[in-house]
Amino acid sequence: MAFSARVSRLKSSLIREILAAAQRPEVMSFAGGLPAEALLPTLDWSELPASVGQYGMSEGEPALRELIAAEARQLGVPCTAEQVMIVSGSQQTLDLAAKLFIDPGTQVLLEAPTYLAALQSFQFFGADCLTVPQEADGPCLAALRECLEQNRPAFAYLIPTFQNPSAVRYSEAKRDAVAQLLDAYGVTLLEDEPYRELVFDEGSATPIVARLRKASWIYTGTVSKTLVPGLRVGYLIATPDLFPHLLRLKQSADLHTNRIGQWQALQWLGSERYREHLAQLRSFYRERRDAMQLSLQAHFADLADWEIPQGGLFFWLRLRHAQDTRELLDAALAQDVAFMPGEPFFVDPERNPGYLRLNFSHVAPARLDEGLRRLAAVIRNAQAEAA
Amino acid sequence: MAFSARVSRLKSSLIREILAAAQRPEVMSFAGGLPAEALLPTLDWSELPASVGQYGMSEGEPALRELIAAEARQLGVPCTAEQVMIVSGSQQTLDLAAKLFIDPGTQVLLEAPTYLAALQSFQFFGADCLTVPQEADGPCLAALRECLEQNRPAFAYLIPTFQNPSAVRYSEAKRDAVAQLLDAYGVTLLEDEPYRELVFDEGSATPIVARLRKASWIYTGTVSKTLVPGLRVGYLIATPDLFPHLLRLKQSADLHTNRIGQWQALQWLGSERYREHLAQLRSFYRERRDAMQLSLQAHFADLADWEIPQGGLFFWLRLRHAQDTRELLDAALAQDVAFMPGEPFFVDPERNPGYLRLNFSHVAPARLDEGLRRLAAVIRNAQAEAA
Repeated sequence: MAFSARVSRLKSSLIREILAAAQRPEVMSFAGGLPAEALLPTLDWSELPASVGQYGMSEGEPALRELIAAEARQLGVPCTAEQVMIVSGSQQTLDLAAKLFIDPGTQVLLEAPTYLAALQSFQFFGADCLTVPQEADGPCLAALRECLEQNRPAFAYLIPTFQNPSAVRYSEAKRDAVAQLLDAYGVTLLEDEPYRELVFDEGSATPIVARLRKASWIYTGTVSKTLVPGLRVGYLIATPDLFPHLLRLKQSADLHTNRIGQWQALQWLGSERYREHLAQLRSFYRERRDAMQLSLQAHFADLADWEIPQGGLFFWLRLRHAQDTRELLDAALAQDVAFMPGEPFFVDPERNPGYLRLNFSHVAPARLDEGLRRLAAVIRNAQAEAA
Repeated sequence: MAFSARVSRLKSSLIREILAAAQRPEVMSFAGGLPAEALLPTLDWSELPASVGQYGMSEGEPALRELIAAEARQLGVPCTAEQVMIVSGSQQTLDLAAKLFIDPGTQVLLEAPTYLAALQSFQFFGADCLTVPQEADGPCLAALRECLEQNRPAFAYLIPTFQNPSAVRYSEAKRDAVAQLLDAYGVTLLEDEPYRELVFDEGSATPIVARLRKASWIYTGTVSKTLVPGLRVGYLIATPDLFPHLLRLKQSADLHTNRIGQWQALQWLGSERYREHLAQLRSFYRERRDAMQLSLQAHFADLADWEIPQGGLFFWLRLRHAQDTRELLDAALAQDVAFMPGEPFFVDPERNPGYLRLNFSHVAPARLDEGLRRLAAVIRNAQAEAA
């Protein structure tokens, strides 16, 4: 069987295997990024118009595009509804951007670590992935400048607000500096913000795309983290030089995003009950974050270092005695605990051992402490065996 | 702006322009492939479980996969639920297959004419599109054999049942012969069957994939033509050598298909009320087909030749005085009539002038005759000017 060259770049399915193992009900899973099911709102379908059953426009529903443009403008993103496209979850934005920009060998600039599924998608299309180390307040600016001086990336893929997996929120200063550098070097920005609304502590910052003066950009978001992931409704907003190409790619990918999910998103976004729902989400997740912080202090204080995430869904732990955390998975699963090893979030996993990504939204507080106690014991055992 | 090489292969948006023009309510549109809105069933959401809101599996909902596998086995397709993947409309199957097989220069075998959006998707990925002429009962076998002797296509893309645009239903003999040739030359089959259930006259035939003994295959279908296109729910069934790759490609494309649409499809497929709905659809479309046949006889008898479609959504007309039908569009739209020129359905449009695809499902019978009268007049005018 002769497959395309890019199929040889399809990565192993470690993540799928972990998530599959985590399906067993007895497993305490810190592995995924699932919203808490208790907080999925009840959907009212009684007003759904029959006309929504017909084929729709590849751009998405006009009223939803208007609403998303208005919300984006409130965030400081200059745009009109004509720049908004509804996508089948923001994962699709990554696929469309990869198709638009990446030939084998095309340079792409990413944070290290970065979102695993983005890395896999870009590498699948043959990207040469350049990385800039993530610091507590955003990317290392000296490294970013040096990278841009020496290379010509087709775009930079950044997650400035509660980054997955590092949980970093870029500071105002770094947002400005990144925008200036991208403008200066004429590099397109793909800004991914699934977690913006999941903020637990004060402070917010306008998107980087709002700070650009010259560079082209794609801004992407989703209702998956705040409303209902099963709808598969996300959006992208793009500068007019990119939008027509993205639209044709969308049409070729799946004609248009499902209209029942778009209609449901339209019922919620911008509404008073959505604001109430978001407040409830933040409060719920803040409590879970705080509970995990307490348990981490109890069990991991001598094992690892971490920052308290101010939003998003994850803690990002750095082990003091670095080891390949993928090798801890089997022992953890034998104790009915699942977690996400940190290595796959790096372009060069072997050179970045010793990180763990722990989700705090999914495991109920009553079991969370036990799960973390077991995970710490697994790590201690492994270190004792290695010593 | 440096785009990928494949972006230069994105085709012009003639179709989008036609469909946009056809949106005007006064336009009688024979251009699209839209189901009649009067036949979109009312959807009952009252039993939708809240758990469907959560992220789902990339393969799709297990119960729906079981159901589709059972239906496929009844058609004669040997498969289990493990070979079934739910996709975001069967258009996505084309995107996944293109990613799996096509590098720049990869040969793909197609019918001439063929489904426009498939042709565009394969060409976008850089395929070298080989074609076999379509005859009234399926592809020309001598041409198919010669093509397979002289080339090594990665796959053959065929629409054997009420093909879009030609409306051809392959005969039993041609189905067998095609299967034998694909087996003999070891060529993978991508069989696309959106119209199988829209059958108006007696006769049915098992899919070609059911007749293969050695070759790998992907079979794809959708609920868009029989239930509700706005759900964006389709499926593929693939041999086990292909399925794991397709699954990773699906995950990378959009994580999974929307679960609310999958749940709705599960309520219908295989049910008694779905059988009743299909019977109603067939009866409704048969009447519209018959009405169009009468009007075509009245207005086109001296202008064109055609076969009466036994299923599907289209008439495929061949003008007796061949001319580029794209040049008729502006004049037709000025008369508030839209149609689909035939040229874009061919790999080499310039060498295949003089075909028109006319949809009969969308225009109400009361306006259909007037629309076809105007379209015939446009053609007569153009021929008089050319004479």
